[in-house]
Amino acid sequence: MTMTDTTAAADQDFNDPLLGSSFKGYPRTQPPRRRSEIGAAGWNVLAGDLPLPLAVLKREALEHNLAWMQSRVREWGIDLAPHGKTTMSPQLFQRQLDAGAWGLTFATVTQLGVGVAAGARRTLIANQVVSDEDLAGIQLLLQAHADLRVVFLVDSLAQLALIEDWSKRHPESVPFEVMLEIGVEGARTGCRTHEEAVALATRLRDSDAAKLVGIETYEGQGATGSSEPDTAYANTLMDRVEAIARHCDTQQLFETDEVLVSAGGSAIFDLVAGRLKPALGSPVRGLLRSGCYVTHDHGFYKRMVSAVDERLGCGCGESLRPAMEVWATVQSRPEPGLAILAVGKRDISFDLSMPVPIARAARGMLEAQAVPAGWKITALNDQHAYLRWDAAEEAQAPVVGDRVGLGISHPCTTFDKWHWMPVVEENYRVSDAVAMHF
Amino acid sequence: MTMTDTTAAADQDFNDPLLGSSFKGYPRTQPPRRRSEIGAAGWNVLAGDLPLPLAVLKREALEHNLAWMQSRVREWGIDLAPHGKTTMSPQLFQRQLDAGAWGLTFATVTQLGVGVAAGARRTLIANQVVSDEDLAGIQLLLQAHADLRVVFLVDSLAQLALIEDWSKRHPESVPFEVMLEIGVEGARTGCRTHEEAVALATRLRDSDAAKLVGIETYEGQGATGSSEPDTAYANTLMDRVEAIARHCDTQQLFETDEVLVSAGGSAIFDLVAGRLKPALGSPVRGLLRSGCYVTHDHGFYKRMVSAVDERLGCGCGESLRPAMEVWATVQSRPEPGLAILAVGKRDISFDLSMPVPIARAARGMLEAQAVPAGWKITALNDQHAYLRWDAAEEAQAPVVGDRVGLGISHPCTTFDKWHWMPVVEENYRVSDAVAMHF
Repeated sequence: MTMTDTTAAADQDFNDPLLGSSFKGYPRTQPPRRRSEIGAAGWNVLAGDLPLPLAVLKREALEHNLAWMQSRVREWGIDLAPHGKTTMSPQLFQRQLDAGAWGLTFATVTQLGVGVAAGARRTLIANQVVSDEDLAGIQLLLQAHADLRVVFLVDSLAQLALIEDWSKRHPESVPFEVMLEIGVEGARTGCRTHEEAVALATRLRDSDAAKLVGIETYEGQGATGSSEPDTAYANTLMDRVEAIARHCDTQQLFETDEVLVSAGGSAIFDLVAGRLKPALGSPVRGLLRSGCYVTHDHGFYKRMVSAVDERLGCGCGESLRPAMEVWATVQSRPEPGLAILAVGKRDISFDLSMPVPIARAARGMLEAQAVPAGWKITALNDQHAYLRWDAAEEAQAPVVGDRVGLGISHPCTTFDKWHWMPVVEENYRVSDAVAMHF
Repeated sequence: MTMTDTTAAADQDFNDPLLGSSFKGYPRTQPPRRRSEIGAAGWNVLAGDLPLPLAVLKREALEHNLAWMQSRVREWGIDLAPHGKTTMSPQLFQRQLDAGAWGLTFATVTQLGVGVAAGARRTLIANQVVSDEDLAGIQLLLQAHADLRVVFLVDSLAQLALIEDWSKRHPESVPFEVMLEIGVEGARTGCRTHEEAVALATRLRDSDAAKLVGIETYEGQGATGSSEPDTAYANTLMDRVEAIARHCDTQQLFETDEVLVSAGGSAIFDLVAGRLKPALGSPVRGLLRSGCYVTHDHGFYKRMVSAVDERLGCGCGESLRPAMEVWATVQSRPEPGLAILAVGKRDISFDLSMPVPIARAARGMLEAQAVPAGWKITALNDQHAYLRWDAAEEAQAPVVGDRVGLGISHPCTTFDKWHWMPVVEENYRVSDAVAMHF
């Protein structure tokens, strides 16, 4: 092959990878297919066309969520830079951008590289970048893509010293665009005090290595799901962000035509959204970084967003819908009240709470049915799940060969266990597929 | 490309994949390289040649563990069929087979397919196979490889009925080789009673779809790390296995020249190893399935195997050594007593216990040093770790840009977060690399 052939092949492999039976969930009885060809294969999950366990995305819920969140930020007068770390899927990135997202957010430079290869051009790294290899990686990407913008976080003079040291050794590099991160005592990264933040911003003004283009915080760690404390927490935090933004503005510490003000996980995003456009002398772009909204879930985010729903009231239509399910087979019914499903820690999130049984389909049945209220997953091993039920539900107990659909809790840690996922219609017909690059 | 070219390319991509900077841990400043070419690149982890976070395998410890476990099974007069689900790495599979393993074990048919593509020919699936797609997948592999043997588990008449139903619809298929699984009340899969096991074995004798070639159990769920209860638990379980094996033998329910008797995780394997060759009328092959021994760890298995060490006494040399470390950068020191490392749930096990700080190297330092005893990881987010220390250790506190090496707890759930890992010498020079296929 010529070099051009090789590059074209690499691009195709990245954006439209060849899927085959070495990937979990791909039918072993089928030849490999490009991702874009999966929808035409005529498969149906409940018809048994794909091996279980299998994580699926529900098309209608996915499209609803993309549109819903975009409508919200439009109403709030801000923009979306959704966190790509949730899905790491070029196809979902594209849908987010097509829906109107301003840009995309990542957690690491490797993730950024995947996003840029997928077409992202306005990007945030919602993290401190400190190492030579990571700083060099950003400059390489900037050199390769004239239209690329990368903004990362700073929260200490020590970090700035490392950036300046690298830049001194690489005089041909362009200044890094950075946002000042404001953090909360006892939480994660970010300046803890006004004085600390202002000192760093002032020092940045004099730096040739980095220029301050915005202010950032992450409110998600304070979320409880209870509106009163969450509102107070978010307001206190955003008051601090606004005060620091005002100081930087009046002291002309920003080196940009448009100041970025960013916050937002997927738990209490509505409580910070209205605070992302403080009145400054310069134009301001408010950026919400929610990532988990794309698929939402049946666990942690369901609980959190039910409080968002109450706060938003009924003016905004139906809110987020769970768009991801993991289907598994009952492999054993070893004792009364216990079924073992062939799905485990390798396949589904377990870090925030256990998966939630939401549907069942007996072997051969093409329709999913609701499950009894007492069904619960009580534990996961690497490759097994323990499904238990109330004694009163014994007549509805699953049998070996039954399929059980599980809702998840925390989309990020289910996405990262799969190379690809089929997109399904309401009847579980596979109409499309997405690939993931973790 | 011709079909032969395509197949050869596919084989090369599988066994010696092209690695590049879209994979975590691969240097962004380097061109893509085949896995086999990594060792010659001249990289060193502590020299900053690879971006962090990075999971590394220590060559000497790895080789020691492979040899140590093989010596043990040789002494015990049994064989090793190590669980491939731990690593899912063709290169580590090959090292296990080269070291003398009889075969390999898998948890799913997809994993089996990866193992067969990597060269495995004597294989166990330590799980019930029940679905049409999985049964068809096994037959496809058997058809494609005349020298392949696949043995899976049965534990219910309901499962056997599904196998027979499939076989009836596929009269050209060969009988499945199965082992009877013996389980424990309150634990996972497997027949709970002697009567249940014997009834299933008797029924299997009359089945054309499956033939009984062995007996299997998994003792690991009962492990506490305390020798007295663990010994009692293992003995009770293995007494049951032996009684059922004897019954099957005297009643001629086995349809094989050599009865397989298998058990063994990586926690109390020494307590079952001596029970895998019961005196039967037929020849017996005892198969230990330990998987985590390959890399061992600094957490759960370290605690468990310290009890194994005591039981084995000093006659067998030094036992297992931790061979996996995950290195990460300090990205923030936001408040006294807290450092945030750029590594999280996406990169390292957290399911059995938190990672353990074991080494540090300041920026630019080429030698790793021990860390103060009070350093601990107290929490992980998706992409962050919280490192805390005792107030008395403040003088030794890490600074932004420092590198910290973390020991893991549970190899399986770190391996599955990476596409590849460098193999390093004691001085962290990269001398080889392995790829993973989860």
